[in-house]
Amino acid sequence: MNPPLKLAIAGLGTVGAGVLQLLDRQAELLAERAGRRLVVVAVSARDRRRDRGADLSAVRWYEDAVAMAADPEVDVVVELIGGADGIARRVVDTAIAHGKHVVTANKALMAHEGMRLAARAEETGIILSFEASVAGGIPVIKGLREGLAGNRLQRVYGILNGTCNYILTTMRESAHEFAEVLAEAQKLGYAEADPSFDIDGIDAAHKLAILASVGFGRPIDLDGVYAEGIRHISRLDIDFAEELGYRIKLLGIARLTEEGLEQRVHPCMVPRGTPIAAVEGVYNAVVAEGDFVGRVVLQGRGAGAFPTASAIAADLVDIAAGRQVPPFGTHSNNLRPIPGVPIERHHGAYYIRLMVVDQPGVIADVAAALRDEHVSMESMIQRGRAPGEAVPVVLTTHVTVEAAMRRALKKIETLDSVLEPPRMIRIEDF
Amino acid sequence: MNPPLKLAIAGLGTVGAGVLQLLDRQAELLAERAGRRLVVVAVSARDRRRDRGADLSAVRWYEDAVAMAADPEVDVVVELIGGADGIARRVVDTAIAHGKHVVTANKALMAHEGMRLAARAEETGIILSFEASVAGGIPVIKGLREGLAGNRLQRVYGILNGTCNYILTTMRESAHEFAEVLAEAQKLGYAEADPSFDIDGIDAAHKLAILASVGFGRPIDLDGVYAEGIRHISRLDIDFAEELGYRIKLLGIARLTEEGLEQRVHPCMVPRGTPIAAVEGVYNAVVAEGDFVGRVVLQGRGAGAFPTASAIAADLVDIAAGRQVPPFGTHSNNLRPIPGVPIERHHGAYYIRLMVVDQPGVIADVAAALRDEHVSMESMIQRGRAPGEAVPVVLTTHVTVEAAMRRALKKIETLDSVLEPPRMIRIEDF
Repeated sequence: MNPPLKLAIAGLGTVGAGVLQLLDRQAELLAERAGRRLVVVAVSARDRRRDRGADLSAVRWYEDAVAMAADPEVDVVVELIGGADGIARRVVDTAIAHGKHVVTANKALMAHEGMRLAARAEETGIILSFEASVAGGIPVIKGLREGLAGNRLQRVYGILNGTCNYILTTMRESAHEFAEVLAEAQKLGYAEADPSFDIDGIDAAHKLAILASVGFGRPIDLDGVYAEGIRHISRLDIDFAEELGYRIKLLGIARLTEEGLEQRVHPCMVPRGTPIAAVEGVYNAVVAEGDFVGRVVLQGRGAGAFPTASAIAADLVDIAAGRQVPPFGTHSNNLRPIPGVPIERHHGAYYIRLMVVDQPGVIADVAAALRDEHVSMESMIQRGRAPGEAVPVVLTTHVTVEAAMRRALKKIETLDSVLEPPRMIRIEDF
Repeated sequence: MNPPLKLAIAGLGTVGAGVLQLLDRQAELLAERAGRRLVVVAVSARDRRRDRGADLSAVRWYEDAVAMAADPEVDVVVELIGGADGIARRVVDTAIAHGKHVVTANKALMAHEGMRLAARAEETGIILSFEASVAGGIPVIKGLREGLAGNRLQRVYGILNGTCNYILTTMRESAHEFAEVLAEAQKLGYAEADPSFDIDGIDAAHKLAILASVGFGRPIDLDGVYAEGIRHISRLDIDFAEELGYRIKLLGIARLTEEGLEQRVHPCMVPRGTPIAAVEGVYNAVVAEGDFVGRVVLQGRGAGAFPTASAIAADLVDIAAGRQVPPFGTHSNNLRPIPGVPIERHHGAYYIRLMVVDQPGVIADVAAALRDEHVSMESMIQRGRAPGEAVPVVLTTHVTVEAAMRRALKKIETLDSVLEPPRMIRIEDF
């Protein structure tokens, strides 16, 4: 058997502990699959005393993860610190500079610095792997980059944030409002104390930027990702979605149109019969539409120590076996920019919910505002009468351009009988 | 760029033509991803004149595919002839003997000869790839073998035959009986003139044997696969399934139990809320349950020229880029037999449908037969009264061992009031 592959792990939080346990429990299995043993020789973490569920007595401890990344004995640095700058970035830079392979779960770092890191990795000849950065244990990077290598994609999209999917699923099942469910998710550990990274769509935007680069063979363009979160979704919308035959999901969508590449993260109305609508709770799913393969759906646990550790182990086995793929599926020089399409030029159908005073003439005013912007209504629901009081009115539109939709909503918002800013949710066409 | 990878394609039927078209249309893309061009230098097929949608004027034609497999100019032989013996087998043997890589879509060959071929491939140092042999364009072999390399699986199962899934879906949607739907599927080209390979579960058994080997790291054991098809499924069963909250699917299931490895292909009652229940029509899906990753679902088109070509292209890109994985994920020497569990020792719940004379005492007799074999009833449905005439009675049982269930059914079949052989469908636990 070949000499062991020597690993250094930077960051021993929940995921780090999961990786240590996997490497310990599956040592024989991994050695057989990789053709050599995977051995942890160094770790770096703040707290030495915490129990990580694995024996670390024979392992070198570093206070300084950056120094560890330069350790001459180390073959691969596994970066599990997180964050787009600061230590994580310096650890990865140092590892590459010292000719070490890098495995990372860090989507923020990859979304911000992926192009620079890939170019440096290619120059140095090291492998840079990041399966764990998108959709946890689901092999989506490998699936797109290698499994669908014979395809040009038309669209890649998915449920990329388990926290949001858990909140939306629970809102529907429990009939509670967003704020209550968020508080409960925080208690259960499914949402962070500061949840904005998840619920404002930033985490999903990072992942989408990575997927779009791998899927479309273009450089990462994080700035080109439109991101809108789920704070404004209410129970009312979830109920109307059911009534209209939809589920509300926070999707990340990269889609090639005649104008260029759309990249957007926002809540979507998804037809209830589609595979993505059935993905509930903390599960993630990624759908790729290729010109030869058609629609492929990959689904599984999008977060958690063990699923993430599974993705990291897959990357490590590939490295140990000497299997090298350019980080984004093709050499960085081959990645070609595709012009981005700003959200204002998005063409799609829309769900609009208004809170209006129940009095004659309101719908006529709303309809006129839509007509003036050439937005064509597809359906209208006005449930329950309460003359003189606030009632919800729900509209769906035919396909229209977002800029027109926004102008119409601005006008509608100024109507006296419209009591709250209109809520708008995009309807995705599958 | 590296010198081109020279391909020979044996068999230019539907799939072969799809492969030629993919290689032609995606030539630039593949070259970038593989780091070299993929060039077809030789083909072998009976009919030279048929239009395959690609220019073959510069390609050497062989009458004899076996001779082509020995062509010194060829790097990779793509075997698309099919069948477990005869020419396909000789083509693959010849290619390996001459040190050429092999890509095949041939599940029958792999299920019957996979171990021998893998051992020979490893001796010779060539790559033997067969992504296209299971689940069409879905990267399931890569997904299990590489993407989930850090896991021990507890179960791998799936909808592996699109013809059966199409028939079962259409029976439910159209309210037609099996024979009518089969005839229609044959007209549409979704079923062969001789459909037994598909509808008797043989095709799915081949695929399951391959998946079980890759997933559990054990030698292929096709003889150990229990196979039962869908001929006996009637509209009545489909309606009762709906009523009980199930869908009927032909599944291939490999499951590790305390007794060993179960491998079975048969119609299943699948709870309607599970991902697999939502896979309809010609779609396939594979579900893997790993100890670290949890449940991963891979879904897509399981057949057809273009999805199959997509899988073949993925294998070719890996070969062109020099990425080698042992055919079954680990060196053949590391594959360890796991004792098989015969179907009689399967533990599960059962759906039983009887056609009985509607008269007092029938249920008591049936219940007594079950009690005598210690089979515990979970529910019973007797719809519609027609005193003295034939009515269906449906039972579901708690978990029991199949041998006891079979003995009870034998007894029930002999009851005077039971008019037809009982129908039994296994309920799968998810």
